Amino acid sequence: MKSLLLVAHGSRRESSNDEVRQLTARLGSQAGNRFQTVNCAFLELAKPSIPDGIEACIQAGAEEVIVLPYFLSAGRHVIEDIPREVAGKQKEHPQIPIRLAPYLGSAEGITELLLGVAE
Amino acid sequence: MKSLLLVAHGSRRESSNDEVRQLTARLGSQAGNRFQTVNCAFLELAKPSIPDGIEACIQAGAEEVIVLPYFLSAGRHVIEDIPREVAGKQKEHPQIPIRLAPYLGSAEGITELLLGVAE
Repeated sequence: MKSLLLVAHGSRRESSNDEVRQLTARLGSQAGNRFQTVNCAFLELAKPSIPDGIEACIQAGAEEVIVLPYFLSAGRHVIEDIPREVAGKQKEHPQIPIRLAPYLGSAEGITELLLGVAE
Repeated sequence: MKSLLLVAHGSRRESSNDEVRQLTARLGSQAGNRFQTVNCAFLELAKPSIPDGIEACIQAGAEEVIVLPYFLSAGRHVIEDIPREVAGKQKEHPQIPIRLAPYLGSAEGITELLLGVAE
């Protein structure tokens, strides 16, 4: 079974981190049986870290981990930092594919979502 | 006619600002006749500013301006900074409604979009 790990930047404001956690819970309930688990992790300033988040998925029995960057632009975090964390963890667990999904801002459907919000 | 102004944070990386501009162009072509104009503005670090962006919509003949925060969490920028910029501009143009749309991260459909990206 696949596990989904939503990766956000993390904030000093705990309410922003909680917003990500609540979104993750909604994501989990909407995912149905597409993922064994749906969790979140943070690049910095909040817990769990990305390596810890991936590790938790694997310990829970994931046969594949999908890491989805909850980021709007292809900045350094998306291009370098998150892939580096994923690569490090992949080395530790070569038998479990850890796949990096496209970051949110690159999703084609984001325009439709924005037009809906603007109504 | 209504004008849509997508408001992003702005980045020191010009490529991130360009990403917002390209998204805005896609948004404009998908909006059909729902908006007279679709433009973007930045809270900081890039141009145009939010007041300048709103002003451009009004000068182009907008009868209503929808300001849509391209932000993922309800931090200080979404809660205080953007509303303050909008309120200042509303005072200058009391006859043109300038409406603040919900920020992207609060859109209900974001879970569906994320699940699509994770496939």
